[in-house]
Amino acid sequence: MVDETRQAVRPAIASEESLMRIFTVPEAPGSTLAKIEQEISSNLAGFLNENIAAVEKPLHEIEKDFQAANIPEEPRFVSEHAQELMEKLVAHSVHTSAPSFIGHMTSALPHFVLPLSKLMVGLNQNLVKIETSKAFTPLERQVLGMMHHMVYGKDDAFYRKWMHNAKNALGAFCSGGTVANISALWVARNKLLKPDGDFNGINSDGLVAAMMHYGYKGLAILVSERGHYSLGKAADVLGIGRSNIVSIETDHNNRVDVAKMREKANELAGKGIKVMAIVGVAGTTETGNIDPLNEMADLADEINCHFHIDAAWGGATMLSNNARRLLAGCERADSITIDAHKQMYVPMGAGIVLFKEPDTVNVVEHHAEYILRKGSKDLGSHTLEGSRPGMAMLVHACLSIIGRKGYEMLIDKSLEKARYFAELIKQTDDFELVTEPELCLLTYRYVPEKIKEVLKTADEQTKLDIYAALNRFTASMQKRQREAGRSFVSRTRLTPYQYDNLPTVVFRVVLANPLTSKQILHDILAEQRELAGKDPIFKKYLAKYL
Amino acid sequence: MVDETRQAVRPAIASEESLMRIFTVPEAPGSTLAKIEQEISSNLAGFLNENIAAVEKPLHEIEKDFQAANIPEEPRFVSEHAQELMEKLVAHSVHTSAPSFIGHMTSALPHFVLPLSKLMVGLNQNLVKIETSKAFTPLERQVLGMMHHMVYGKDDAFYRKWMHNAKNALGAFCSGGTVANISALWVARNKLLKPDGDFNGINSDGLVAAMMHYGYKGLAILVSERGHYSLGKAADVLGIGRSNIVSIETDHNNRVDVAKMREKANELAGKGIKVMAIVGVAGTTETGNIDPLNEMADLADEINCHFHIDAAWGGATMLSNNARRLLAGCERADSITIDAHKQMYVPMGAGIVLFKEPDTVNVVEHHAEYILRKGSKDLGSHTLEGSRPGMAMLVHACLSIIGRKGYEMLIDKSLEKARYFAELIKQTDDFELVTEPELCLLTYRYVPEKIKEVLKTADEQTKLDIYAALNRFTASMQKRQREAGRSFVSRTRLTPYQYDNLPTVVFRVVLANPLTSKQILHDILAEQRELAGKDPIFKKYLAKYL
Repeated sequence: MVDETRQAVRPAIASEESLMRIFTVPEAPGSTLAKIEQEISSNLAGFLNENIAAVEKPLHEIEKDFQAANIPEEPRFVSEHAQELMEKLVAHSVHTSAPSFIGHMTSALPHFVLPLSKLMVGLNQNLVKIETSKAFTPLERQVLGMMHHMVYGKDDAFYRKWMHNAKNALGAFCSGGTVANISALWVARNKLLKPDGDFNGINSDGLVAAMMHYGYKGLAILVSERGHYSLGKAADVLGIGRSNIVSIETDHNNRVDVAKMREKANELAGKGIKVMAIVGVAGTTETGNIDPLNEMADLADEINCHFHIDAAWGGATMLSNNARRLLAGCERADSITIDAHKQMYVPMGAGIVLFKEPDTVNVVEHHAEYILRKGSKDLGSHTLEGSRPGMAMLVHACLSIIGRKGYEMLIDKSLEKARYFAELIKQTDDFELVTEPELCLLTYRYVPEKIKEVLKTADEQTKLDIYAALNRFTASMQKRQREAGRSFVSRTRLTPYQYDNLPTVVFRVVLANPLTSKQILHDILAEQRELAGKDPIFKKYLAKYL
Repeated sequence: MVDETRQAVRPAIASEESLMRIFTVPEAPGSTLAKIEQEISSNLAGFLNENIAAVEKPLHEIEKDFQAANIPEEPRFVSEHAQELMEKLVAHSVHTSAPSFIGHMTSALPHFVLPLSKLMVGLNQNLVKIETSKAFTPLERQVLGMMHHMVYGKDDAFYRKWMHNAKNALGAFCSGGTVANISALWVARNKLLKPDGDFNGINSDGLVAAMMHYGYKGLAILVSERGHYSLGKAADVLGIGRSNIVSIETDHNNRVDVAKMREKANELAGKGIKVMAIVGVAGTTETGNIDPLNEMADLADEINCHFHIDAAWGGATMLSNNARRLLAGCERADSITIDAHKQMYVPMGAGIVLFKEPDTVNVVEHHAEYILRKGSKDLGSHTLEGSRPGMAMLVHACLSIIGRKGYEMLIDKSLEKARYFAELIKQTDDFELVTEPELCLLTYRYVPEKIKEVLKTADEQTKLDIYAALNRFTASMQKRQREAGRSFVSRTRLTPYQYDNLPTVVFRVVLANPLTSKQILHDILAEQRELAGKDPIFKKYLAKYL
């Protein structure tokens, strides 16, 4: 974009008067930034396709443009900055909404969220307290109520009583799923180690005093080996320790083995270690599977512990009446994490944690002199974060405009597309479906037919060698496909039962983008087949087996 | 806004095809939402003045519009939703950028952040990993480098070596100051209780094992009684306990008494309690004062503990070469919190924590199979949050366009304005300046001349009665001024030495909005004087003393 109007639009901030202009005078219609905005508004996909470079530039090359550590002394033209931003930043960002970029949990966004985001920024509310958010506070409480209703389905009287109640909260908006998970486990920890007799509670006296008071030798959190890494981080932050997140084996479908979890809980109890919480995963990050939630709820009842569900990615599935049976039992969880910025098509920054019982959050309640006074309805009195933007407005808009039935259509489509892709992979001779799609996420890899043949009769060492080589090959292909810029799948490492539980690098795709067509799925396999033929790792380590 | 084009712009989401349109077709130029956006773009201040209701509606009235707990079943026109949003949400939001609303830490925003925010949302990058953020990762590292340079001023070689280093980080972007403070204290805790011999470190084994290994009887964090409430929350979350945040008295200028802090540290050491960190406040939330940072750094050296500075609000002052001497000693802190969404004029959601030494964050480092692999430059490997938006882009834009000199002008102006307002208050007979502005924050109250006279000769009980009545009166005035909608000051409760350390409710103003004129300050005092005369609390409890 060439900016002929630069001199006319914005004087450099040379005087106090011109400095004030950046707060009072908007971009002139012909300016670079105004043109950028015009393009985003009229054709976002076109803008992204045109301005994000197709072929990836190596990171160390990109870094050259971000070297200066000094804050620039002199003010600068907005247009100059915007121009540079397009060349150095936007061009080398990631096209997360491209229909052929099916490796992420991000997707195309509904167009109305763009102008609404601008409105949100312009209003610049701070949701920590009513004084800086006013109507945004009841709006956020309503969205939490709606999400709570989606999960727990309590009756009208329940929401009339609790949704806008000053002393309680049905949940909290968070910057993301990690803060949501930390919040849930913070609550679980403080609920377990609550005030009791002379003991003022962990929130006041700390973990060491709490453990002494209650006589526990340790705390543990049990979760499937497919649990998200944020749980380990939560255990670290909360003082429980990563080694006390106990990984429980999964079955062939990557669902936690509840019998083994029970066994482990009993074993820990025998040692005086209290299970603080068990965490069910509803849509694992790597395979998209859902733990047996009802069985887990039974276990939580038996051993009397908090039951949290991490449904950051999969939770939105409940919006489909056809698919929500997959998450049966979620309504028995004490708390649940759902990210609206994943399958609810809201922009980055809309994590949500919900609590079944409205008074659960009281164990993390806090007050201050100048805000969050007792009895106020300030949302900040029970959130981990303080100042927060009005993201609830965007979730509210999506729920209202798309509606539950619209979401149902989107979710059902995604599930169908994943099953279609799984079939497509199975019908080939050279791809292998590694994990079936329970939700819209699946994993697979590429293994040339001849290698498959060799593997059938190979001795143990040859098999291990080939597996290792296939892993390097898959990683190499994934990287080269990303760099070519036409499409993107992600990768992870699993230990699938059908490969003797050996570490196996796989392609991972998430099919939540409504714009991803079946043709694109065909094209991606074709591209991968083509890449495979030219892969240097293949030539070096696998060609010899042909 | 009446929308005549509703039917034409967006069909309801009745079919799959029409559902897809929300992802592909932007708002038509004549639609309600497009008109809203047009108004925001061409005249944000006008839009806010016109659409935010001047007179406040009571919260319980507003709540009536946010009652439904069911997610709407049917999809809905964007225009219909936008129209309702304007009436029910925007009209009753808070005009945080109004020049006469001087009670908040939010301010008017530079106009260019609005289109840039839209660009940020449209790009929808996820900063947790390079795969979903690419050039945004080096950009964020550069902004952290610039902020680090502002605070610590290391040489070029330092930033060349560390800014883009995979194994280290100079800090982290956070959703806000609370997460920044928690992050800093998380790091401080893990650094103190690091791996040692057989002990794997607190991050792995938890707090109880750590305390046993190191033989500490307890941990404490020392901070001024003016410390932000997020520090108590951090102590709760981190398992240390709120009661182990030890409040240290302040001097007459609300600066922590370092001699008393030293005394307390020694007393704790005698009991086997380790001071994990001392926290300096650089710009207290309630009075805007700055602790003696150099003295605190000396103390931290002496007792060998982490020195954190909470400069969430005041940190931006360092951008002025004229004012940065006020924060002398900040360059000796092990970590520091600065919110770009406060005095750096960035929209909500841009907290920053910085670490003096690049390897400090290693104690909270974490990895996962599918992202944050070892050796990657993924920012998520050492942040408390996971998925995060590209807010760094907005901070980068403000630093580049306003420039250090532009910020200096803004900051110097704010400080001068605060001193002007303080003088104005002192020159009246009926207002009392309670705390002097060290930065651009001051507190005051209204005490009619005759009441001042009475107080001079009143007996102890009468004095206490009048003080209590003045507190209720001040709170009442503040509420009524807010409700009238012309201007806004906030309030808090202090224990000022000049009022015998009695709890005293005061007006609190923050003068960081560049658009707040001196005339507005005159008008605010005039309005308060007028409100005072009609105040029902005054009539009931104070009129009798006249």
